[in-house]
Amino acid sequence: MEMEQNQTIPSMPEKCDLLIKADAVVTQDDDRRVISDAGIAISNGIVQSLGDYDTLCASHVPTERLDMSGKMLMPGLVNGHTHLPMTLFRGFADDLPLMRWLEDHIWPVESKLTEELLGIGARLGCAELIRTGCTSFLNGYFHEHVTGKAVSDAGLRAVLGEGFFDFPSPQFPTAEDCWRTIRHLNQSFIDHPRLRTAVTPHAAFTVSPDGLVASFELAIEMNVPWQIHLAESPTETAVCLKKYGKRPIELLRSLELLTKRTTLHHCVDITDEEIDLLAETCVNVVHNPASNLKLCSGISPVQKMIDAGVTVGLGTDGAASNNQLNMFRDMALAALVGKVRHDDASAVCAQTALDMATRNSAQCLGWSELGRIEVGCPADMIALDLANPNLMPLYNHVSHAVYGATGMEVCMTMVAGEIIYLYGDFRTIDIKSLKFESLKASEWIISKAKQ
Amino acid sequence: MEMEQNQTIPSMPEKCDLLIKADAVVTQDDDRRVISDAGIAISNGIVQSLGDYDTLCASHVPTERLDMSGKMLMPGLVNGHTHLPMTLFRGFADDLPLMRWLEDHIWPVESKLTEELLGIGARLGCAELIRTGCTSFLNGYFHEHVTGKAVSDAGLRAVLGEGFFDFPSPQFPTAEDCWRTIRHLNQSFIDHPRLRTAVTPHAAFTVSPDGLVASFELAIEMNVPWQIHLAESPTETAVCLKKYGKRPIELLRSLELLTKRTTLHHCVDITDEEIDLLAETCVNVVHNPASNLKLCSGISPVQKMIDAGVTVGLGTDGAASNNQLNMFRDMALAALVGKVRHDDASAVCAQTALDMATRNSAQCLGWSELGRIEVGCPADMIALDLANPNLMPLYNHVSHAVYGATGMEVCMTMVAGEIIYLYGDFRTIDIKSLKFESLKASEWIISKAKQ
Repeated sequence: MEMEQNQTIPSMPEKCDLLIKADAVVTQDDDRRVISDAGIAISNGIVQSLGDYDTLCASHVPTERLDMSGKMLMPGLVNGHTHLPMTLFRGFADDLPLMRWLEDHIWPVESKLTEELLGIGARLGCAELIRTGCTSFLNGYFHEHVTGKAVSDAGLRAVLGEGFFDFPSPQFPTAEDCWRTIRHLNQSFIDHPRLRTAVTPHAAFTVSPDGLVASFELAIEMNVPWQIHLAESPTETAVCLKKYGKRPIELLRSLELLTKRTTLHHCVDITDEEIDLLAETCVNVVHNPASNLKLCSGISPVQKMIDAGVTVGLGTDGAASNNQLNMFRDMALAALVGKVRHDDASAVCAQTALDMATRNSAQCLGWSELGRIEVGCPADMIALDLANPNLMPLYNHVSHAVYGATGMEVCMTMVAGEIIYLYGDFRTIDIKSLKFESLKASEWIISKAKQ
Repeated sequence: MEMEQNQTIPSMPEKCDLLIKADAVVTQDDDRRVISDAGIAISNGIVQSLGDYDTLCASHVPTERLDMSGKMLMPGLVNGHTHLPMTLFRGFADDLPLMRWLEDHIWPVESKLTEELLGIGARLGCAELIRTGCTSFLNGYFHEHVTGKAVSDAGLRAVLGEGFFDFPSPQFPTAEDCWRTIRHLNQSFIDHPRLRTAVTPHAAFTVSPDGLVASFELAIEMNVPWQIHLAESPTETAVCLKKYGKRPIELLRSLELLTKRTTLHHCVDITDEEIDLLAETCVNVVHNPASNLKLCSGISPVQKMIDAGVTVGLGTDGAASNNQLNMFRDMALAALVGKVRHDDASAVCAQTALDMATRNSAQCLGWSELGRIEVGCPADMIALDLANPNLMPLYNHVSHAVYGATGMEVCMTMVAGEIIYLYGDFRTIDIKSLKFESLKASEWIISKAKQ
C-alpha cells in the first residue's frame, strides 16, 4: 500500500537553470550511451539531470528552455594540442617540411610578434574553435597571459602553457625568469573557473636536460601537468641521437620524466618498445594527424598505443601547420589515416576517434570531467544540425560525428552552461572587427617577412 | 589625332545577362591567375568577360548584378568519381575492408534497391554536392536514367555511366541487353546541355575480358569516355593474378584498352613501370583518397603519376565509403596524405590538389572546358565566404581553398550561369522533403539488411 501511495504522489519538481530538448545526446559516458528524444537539465554550469526528455520535463522547472529538435548534442570537443596565436600564420608558408618551415618561415617572424598581434591571433583562434565545436584545449605559446585573456573573454576553457626554449632565450634571460613567469601565470588564474596552467617546455632538442628536469620540478610544485612536443619526426630523433646519444623517449626516461603527469605531443617516430614503456609509465599522448601529414612527419601508430593501454588524445596543432583548428577534421583524419598506418580497416574506428577527441584529450589536459555529458560534469556541449544533407540519412550518430560532419554543422556551442555560439551568432566575439584586425596583422607579418 | 579621338570615344557597352563583383577570382586558367577586385560578365551560361571589376562595369550593361564582395570565386569543383545513389548507405557500415564491406554489407542490400529509393539517394547526393561547391561529376551506378533525372532537376552537370558486371547479371541477362540500355541512355540525353554518358564496366575482376573489349567498342561507337575501377587494392591485384595471371593494368594493356579514351579510377596498387605505361598511353586516373583510406586500400602515388605526365583527377567515391561527397575534404586529403606517401612535404602541393579537383577531373570527364573560369567556358562557379574565421587571415587563395576551407564556406553555387544555391537557399532541391524521404529510405534499408 505504502509503495502504491509513493508511486501516485509525484515527486517535487526540481528547479534548473536550463532545460534542453534534443533528438539525441551522444553522452560519451562510460557506457557510451546515445540517448534518443533526450533532455538535459543544467544548473550552475553543471549537468544536473540527463535522460528521456518527457520524463525530465515532468520533473524539472527550468528558468530557460532551449529547443534543439532536429539536432544531436555531443560533448564539446577537447583539443589536446594547439598554439592559438599562430592562427596569424594560416596559409603563410605551406608545403614545407617541419624544420625548414620552422627555421626559414615561422621563427624569424614569430620572434617579432607584439602582444597586440598575439591577441588578434588568439581571438581568431577562439572564434574558429567555437564555430567548429571545440570547448576546451591545451595551448602552448609565448606571453600566455595574452591568450588567457582572449580565452576568458571568449567564454572558452583552456590549460595554458608558457612555452620556453633553452636559456638564455630572447624572452627569458635565465631559467628563474621563466619559472617566475610561469608561477605568476598560474597564480593569476588560480581562481578562474575556466583557466588552468601547465608546464610546457618546447621539446627535448630545444631545452637542455637540466631545464627539462627543473621544469618538471616546477610542475610538481604547482601540481599541474607537464607537456612537451616529443618524437614528432625522424629528424627530431636524429638530432636527439646526435646531441645526447639517445632517442627522445629514451632521453626522457633517463631523466625520470615519464610519469602520469606527463603528456607527449605527437609521438610519430616511436618504436614498439617505446610504446610499451609509455603504457607502463602511464604517460599520455596527443595525436595531431593533420599537422603530422602536412609537415611530412609521418603517421603516428595510434591504434598500437591504444591497444597497449596508452591514453591517446587528439589535437589540431596550430593553424600554421594544419591549416584549420577544426577538431572534426582531425577526428576524421585520425580514423582515416589510422587504417592505412595499421593496415587494418577496423583500426581507429569511429568510436575510438571520438573518444580521442573527447574523454582522452580531457585526460591529457588533466581535466577528466570534461569530454562527456554526464550528471555532475561541466555543461560543455555542442549541437550538430541534422538538417545538413551530409548528415542524411542517419544510421549511427558516432559515425556521423567522425566521418560525416565537417564541423560546420555545429549550430550551438556551450561552455559551463553558457551558450557562446548559436545559429551563426558569436555571442562573445566580434567577427567583423576580427576580419579587419586579421587583415592588419597579415599586412604586418608580410612586411616583417620581407625584412 | 585619329588615335586620340578613338581614345576619347568610349567603346559601345556590351550587354550581358549577369555581372558579378567579387574580392577575388581564382581562375584556374593556363596561367593560374588570381584576379583581385574582379568582375565576371556572363551571358547564355558562358563566361563572356573577366577582369578588373571597374573596367568590366564601365564596358557592360548587365540585366542582373550579383555582389559577391567579401567572397572569393573559383571554378565549381569537378568530382571525377562518385556513385550518388549510394548516399543512402552513408554510415551504414563503417570500419571494414573493401571486399568484406562490399560482399557482406553493400551488395546484399544494393541489389534490392527500387528506382524510388535510387532517386532519393541521387537527390540527396546532389544536395550535398551543391552545398559543398561541386558543379559537375562522373557518376557510375545502376538505373542511371534515375540519377540523370535527379541531376537534371538539380541543375547540376554530369557524365552518367551505367554500371555493369559479368553477364548474365540480375539486371542484364545478356551483354546486348546492357549495350541497348547504354545506347538508350546516351540517346535520351543527346540534346541535354548538362548531361553526357560514359561506358563504365565495374572492374577488371568483375567483367570478363570479352565484356571489357566489347564495352570499349561501344564507347568508340558512341564516342564517349570509357571508365573503370582499377588497381584499387592489393586484394584486387591478387584476384586478377589468380584469375588471369596478370596484374590489372597488364590485363588492360593485353586487351589494348589503355588509350586516351580510358580513365582508371583509384590506381592505388600500381608500380613505377605501370605509371610510365599510363603516361605513354595517355590514360587518365582519378584519385579517391578518403575512400582508399577508409577501406584501407592504401595511398595512391599521385605525385609520381603527375611527374610522369599522367593527368590525375580527384573524386569522392560514394558516400558509403567516404562518408562525404565533399570535394574540399578530398582536396585537403590528397595534399595531406600525398606528402607522407612520397616522403616529401612539397608533394601534392595546394596548387596541384586544386588542379586535380578542377582542370584534371574535367579532362577525366572528357569535358575539358570545365574546371576553369575563362572567357568562352561554361559559367560553372562557386563563391567562398571569406568572413568565416577559418579563412582568416588571407595570404593565398589557393592555400585557403585546399587547406583552410571545409567546403561549407560555399555560399553560392552556379552551373551554366544559373544560381542553384545562394546563402543557405537550395533553389532546385526541397531539403525538408529530402530529410523525410531519407528517413524512410534508411528504415527500408535497415529492414532489408536484417532479412
